[in-house]
Amino acid sequence: MGAQRIDGRQVAERVLEHVRAEVRALTARDVVPHLAVVLVGDDPASATYVRSKANKARAVGMRSTVVHLSAGVTTDELVRRVRALSDDADIDGLIVQLPLPPHVDEAAVIAAIDPAKDVDGFTPENAGRLFRGDLGGLLPCTPRGILALLQAYDLPLAGRHAVVVGRSNIVGKPAAQLFLAHHATVTVVHSRSGPVGRYTRQADILVAAVGKRHFITPDDIKPGAAVIDVGIHRTETGQLTGDVAPDVEQVAGWLTPVPGGVGPMTVAMLLDNTVRAARLRRGWHDVARTGV
Amino acid sequence: MGAQRIDGRQVAERVLEHVRAEVRALTARDVVPHLAVVLVGDDPASATYVRSKANKARAVGMRSTVVHLSAGVTTDELVRRVRALSDDADIDGLIVQLPLPPHVDEAAVIAAIDPAKDVDGFTPENAGRLFRGDLGGLLPCTPRGILALLQAYDLPLAGRHAVVVGRSNIVGKPAAQLFLAHHATVTVVHSRSGPVGRYTRQADILVAAVGKRHFITPDDIKPGAAVIDVGIHRTETGQLTGDVAPDVEQVAGWLTPVPGGVGPMTVAMLLDNTVRAARLRRGWHDVARTGV
Repeated sequence: MGAQRIDGRQVAERVLEHVRAEVRALTARDVVPHLAVVLVGDDPASATYVRSKANKARAVGMRSTVVHLSAGVTTDELVRRVRALSDDADIDGLIVQLPLPPHVDEAAVIAAIDPAKDVDGFTPENAGRLFRGDLGGLLPCTPRGILALLQAYDLPLAGRHAVVVGRSNIVGKPAAQLFLAHHATVTVVHSRSGPVGRYTRQADILVAAVGKRHFITPDDIKPGAAVIDVGIHRTETGQLTGDVAPDVEQVAGWLTPVPGGVGPMTVAMLLDNTVRAARLRRGWHDVARTGV
Repeated sequence: MGAQRIDGRQVAERVLEHVRAEVRALTARDVVPHLAVVLVGDDPASATYVRSKANKARAVGMRSTVVHLSAGVTTDELVRRVRALSDDADIDGLIVQLPLPPHVDEAAVIAAIDPAKDVDGFTPENAGRLFRGDLGGLLPCTPRGILALLQAYDLPLAGRHAVVVGRSNIVGKPAAQLFLAHHATVTVVHSRSGPVGRYTRQADILVAAVGKRHFITPDDIKPGAAVIDVGIHRTETGQLTGDVAPDVEQVAGWLTPVPGGVGPMTVAMLLDNTVRAARLRRGWHDVARTGV
């Protein structure tokens, strides 16, 4: 038996095909969508992510700009730079790669992003819209990607019990809100919850966004559940693995691999958000969507 | 046996004592906090609520103003009026009584409230802050009131399972976020969840914000749980009752009555938010709080 593998690369490729078509349509109207990425400091992982986002934007025909600032930048200076990019009429999408150095006030920096260009969906305005159940704003990329995977595999949320392990502002909490807006019953479990199995074993849909390698074991799974692994860890031998132990595959009904599950979806949704932002800020009506 | 009664009137009175002291301190600095309430149309229940809020504000020494607009007011006109009140330096707290007539774009009206005066905690900015786990903004009154009741009766949230029945933007969703910020494991159950007992029976803390009379029955309760009844319904004989059936009292460990439970807390927290707003918008530091 074993779980059906949820192929994030394949679904992401379908999203990117749509994005490429959108970019072509916008380019025909003399708008080449432009993504700006702010990178602070010299963390190698952050640099890799930023390079990958910029390259993928160019690969679908967009323009991309990376603004690289030194690790010593002050909150004031960073806010000033982010405001200037927000005000730059030539930029459609604007993200600040997280985490920021500890001396920087992350909330202040995020709040300086124009909500209309906030293609990570992290500003208070976009978070507030999602919280209200208004899906018309720019939505965070990883939760949108998870939703698109569930939809691609015909795994409905309405009336199902979705359990989200992890309460980050980037994944856990917005995923919970998005699932709730799609009529799931939602439980959020976290580091203060005690043993998580009593909650996760009830999940029809389980999202692991814990940041601990192989934290979710077969014992934590209801047989047949759809398991979405948001974690990404590098093993001693250099391989990538997730928050979900490999043998969960024996119990789950569906499972995302790491790599090749959620990761490709996150970047695809970032680019999709960028073409959306390019349209919406010009008052051009959004193309038909599946509610993702 | 029977559940311990959670006395909302008594706890609210303690909050109001604190508010009165704050109003005296502010008045000594020539600031008499001023609450403005916008009422649209002639719904008798809304009119009663608004009158009660304005009267209670005056009873603690504040000023209050009710702006009464006709049911036919357009969204544009209402937004204009709300903006003018937001810009009025003499006003510290500003709320718009809900629900608004169906032709009015409620989200647009709420977004017109200055977040610094948003003493209902409904603006996207304040909702976004709560969503991020930042409790430094203005928080919605009913969730804050529930939290204060739990704290007054030494019912901790950290590590407990809180189940919220109802996903409104006013009660259910912000209560879930507030509980999560206080380290509860949180489940949100709603009209699409199917039979709720399978979820509610796991609750250490159960919040019923369903809007259906006696929806929660003894079968839905884990023995010893703390049950918070947000519902308010008028019976045929004119009595007030809640979302929780009276015989839940036989199973629960703690229970809020209706009336005299959550209701008095909501108004007390509105007034507390108003003195908070009066301080914060002047850059005067907030007094020590219990994290409510």
